[in-house]
Amino acid sequence: MTIENAKEKLYAVQKKLAAYEHAIGLLQYDGATTAPSATAQNRGASLSILSEEVYVLSTSDETVEMLEFLDENKSSLSDKEKRMVYLMLKDIKNMKKIPMKEYVDYQELLVIADDVWHKAKLASDFEMFRPYLEKIFETNKRFAAYIEPEKDPYDHCLGEYEEGLTKETLDEFFGELKKHIVPLLKKISAKEQVDDSIRFGKFTDAQQEKFSYWLMELIGLDLEHVGLSTTEHPFTTSLGSHFDERITTHYHEDDFVSSMYSVVHEGGHALYDTGSADDLAYTVLDGGTSMSIHESQSRFYENIIGRSRAFCEYVFPKLNEFFPGAFEGKTVEDFYKAVNKAEPSLIRTEADELTYSLHVMVRYELEKRVMAGELEVKDLPEEWNKLYKEYLGVDVPDDKHGVLQDSHWAGGLVGYFPSYALGNAYGAHFLTKMRKDVDFEKCIREGNYEPINNWNRENIWKHGQLYTPAEILSRVLGEPFSTKHYIKYLSDKYTEIYNL
Amino acid sequence: MTIENAKEKLYAVQKKLAAYEHAIGLLQYDGATTAPSATAQNRGASLSILSEEVYVLSTSDETVEMLEFLDENKSSLSDKEKRMVYLMLKDIKNMKKIPMKEYVDYQELLVIADDVWHKAKLASDFEMFRPYLEKIFETNKRFAAYIEPEKDPYDHCLGEYEEGLTKETLDEFFGELKKHIVPLLKKISAKEQVDDSIRFGKFTDAQQEKFSYWLMELIGLDLEHVGLSTTEHPFTTSLGSHFDERITTHYHEDDFVSSMYSVVHEGGHALYDTGSADDLAYTVLDGGTSMSIHESQSRFYENIIGRSRAFCEYVFPKLNEFFPGAFEGKTVEDFYKAVNKAEPSLIRTEADELTYSLHVMVRYELEKRVMAGELEVKDLPEEWNKLYKEYLGVDVPDDKHGVLQDSHWAGGLVGYFPSYALGNAYGAHFLTKMRKDVDFEKCIREGNYEPINNWNRENIWKHGQLYTPAEILSRVLGEPFSTKHYIKYLSDKYTEIYNL
Repeated sequence: MTIENAKEKLYAVQKKLAAYEHAIGLLQYDGATTAPSATAQNRGASLSILSEEVYVLSTSDETVEMLEFLDENKSSLSDKEKRMVYLMLKDIKNMKKIPMKEYVDYQELLVIADDVWHKAKLASDFEMFRPYLEKIFETNKRFAAYIEPEKDPYDHCLGEYEEGLTKETLDEFFGELKKHIVPLLKKISAKEQVDDSIRFGKFTDAQQEKFSYWLMELIGLDLEHVGLSTTEHPFTTSLGSHFDERITTHYHEDDFVSSMYSVVHEGGHALYDTGSADDLAYTVLDGGTSMSIHESQSRFYENIIGRSRAFCEYVFPKLNEFFPGAFEGKTVEDFYKAVNKAEPSLIRTEADELTYSLHVMVRYELEKRVMAGELEVKDLPEEWNKLYKEYLGVDVPDDKHGVLQDSHWAGGLVGYFPSYALGNAYGAHFLTKMRKDVDFEKCIREGNYEPINNWNRENIWKHGQLYTPAEILSRVLGEPFSTKHYIKYLSDKYTEIYNL
Repeated sequence: MTIENAKEKLYAVQKKLAAYEHAIGLLQYDGATTAPSATAQNRGASLSILSEEVYVLSTSDETVEMLEFLDENKSSLSDKEKRMVYLMLKDIKNMKKIPMKEYVDYQELLVIADDVWHKAKLASDFEMFRPYLEKIFETNKRFAAYIEPEKDPYDHCLGEYEEGLTKETLDEFFGELKKHIVPLLKKISAKEQVDDSIRFGKFTDAQQEKFSYWLMELIGLDLEHVGLSTTEHPFTTSLGSHFDERITTHYHEDDFVSSMYSVVHEGGHALYDTGSADDLAYTVLDGGTSMSIHESQSRFYENIIGRSRAFCEYVFPKLNEFFPGAFEGKTVEDFYKAVNKAEPSLIRTEADELTYSLHVMVRYELEKRVMAGELEVKDLPEEWNKLYKEYLGVDVPDDKHGVLQDSHWAGGLVGYFPSYALGNAYGAHFLTKMRKDVDFEKCIREGNYEPINNWNRENIWKHGQLYTPAEILSRVLGEPFSTKHYIKYLSDKYTEIYNL
């Protein structure tokens, strides 16, 4: 094998993998958006076969031989190629530790589980979903033991989404947040609550859809490459490469704010993905580097931008065009306060910026305990409700508004939730750096996202997965990451809004 | 190799092929329904890779060896298995004659061509589409020469959709139709034209969508397995197996009749596909046996059922529920006449039952001449317009309403169009047999499709591709197929409507 030859194979295998990921991603996207209700089993059969093909292709002797050859000849590789080889070899080593049949069965299980979760949520019936969730947690434990037998299983899961992340780090991180958020929330609850009636009314799906497209264009998404659909639970996915990106939202007819921030949140994910340098397309370096860096972008657009006064000032006059007559007698300030109302609530995706991390903490605690064998899946609803009472002071009326609200576990995403809270905190630290180059408020007040997007693109997006999350943090920050910026951001914002 | 072992492989390969067809079909469906506008190239990259995988899997030594082994041991196979082996070996022999690179390039070309066709149609600019269409015809000629070098290339194309069909048969078939339809049309044009104003008005997409789902349920589709979307050009596709079927339609806000009959037409295709016996799923026998038998079903539901007086009587009262106030002062008879107005027109999919075959004849003539090298693609618009003047007496104002109206050629479907006309004629002959077992008009007048669907399921649908189209015809008819039933059907119907 020559270097040239091996490099050609390297790119060819990645292109093939991208095609399979396109097909698999589209099957899943179709299942969530368009497919008729009783087609999950049929889809599962195809997904299981395609996953098996991915497994075979990724771990074939030919692929491994090529990668190992290139790994031994690192000096002939570009930095990008070195990283490709490293990531692919790491993946293969992990995959090879999982028996193929178990890997394929798990993919099939996830398709069925997602379908059952939808039905269970609709019926608010955890028992319907329980056997599937048990298998999902059980499989995650088993796979963790296969791949990193020496490591704590939950630490392994965390590392899947954020290299090197551990319970220890998170216990400290969440402890710090709790220490500051809970007193802040107490102070707020002693004050008069803000009036958020502006968000409620009658907003048709068609009106909200037009508004969604306008928002997508406002924040700088290219609608020729980014599509919008509706799903039970909003998400973002790349199909084949960052040239075809899809976001989804969920319209509530009586409340336009919910979908509005879903669109901006998923839009942030889509900006990150589509901001990958074009020469990363059809390689494993295409797209974001980790879930927490991804969430740092989505939540940056949703909250730091989207829930700022400057954003509200720009959007409010437009609101009256999209929803004529809906906001008579209301002001920008009403809008700004309504979208920043801090109040303990039941649903994570609807939570305000301040209480959001508490929702994440509930999930973190529960996952951690299930993975450690300290909590059984069957007891999740009860524990969920207990922690919501403890952290947020709310009573969960049913599983639909409790343990069944999120799709993550049904999708096998154990260890994912902490990314949301980390992302929040990263974003606040990023902002302190961005401000040195960009007149942040002015841009947003004028609806001019180019300077902001260019900054993010240059510093974060274009690199795709070329750097680890830790490297991105260190490159952007030039100093160790600290939660203090996030805490100061929250404290300043809510002190002003609530006159604390 | 043991028989057991080979049979296991036979089913495994088919299941794998079904998964790839699911992925490929879904990529195409997504491109037509949901994908952002500038994603065709990305989709083409994935489709080309997946098609290559299908090619490799279908023609691998392992697959061929298994099939040939089973072919040599036919006596140990069920009738179904014999047919599977026969169809797969035939396909492989054909595929092996096409160099893989050319096959894959063609799949990629079709993706791009479809995208360009959409844009060219929008711009009514044939020149934009011409280079792609030239390549498509050129490839069809080349592939025909690879596969059946001894055969006329257009006869080969016809045979791809209908085993054994030739120009000779079609020249006679169309000659017969022309001989009767043209005089009938002349008599009609001497009479007072019917008033079809009932179909025009303002019908929102949302209203029409609700009506579509109602129609789908009416004719007996299972909405848990059959989905509905909108596309430029309506079509039907199975994804993976007949357990996941999709139909599409196109809403015109000023005319509810157009989409109504698209839904019933595509619904007919979906009934046929989903009517395959369940044990044919994930085998090559799943779905319809040929395009003309397929069209015999879709056009049976669209015309023989959907444009009958009995159907109009059942649907009319419901129309008032779906489109309140739209039909004040109108009667069932107005509705019946409006949907049966016979009038030369420009658009095939909007054409009435009587003139429809003339639209097909134009396409047949042109395809035939291009494939014979008697006509160049660049001259298609001019010839198209000339034939429309000659057969239908209408002036084509632009390519959008002319040569660019159909998606078929963009999708590589050369030799497909005649199926529509054959299907019409088969359906009319089938009806004479169905009437012996089913009180046809009574069922339709009462909205009771079970007896009709059961008859079609037992006689046609459940067999999937177990029998050739000729075998299906002979089984159902018990006598040679004749166009006289179709001609009588048209003649009786239009004589009554127009008092000829």
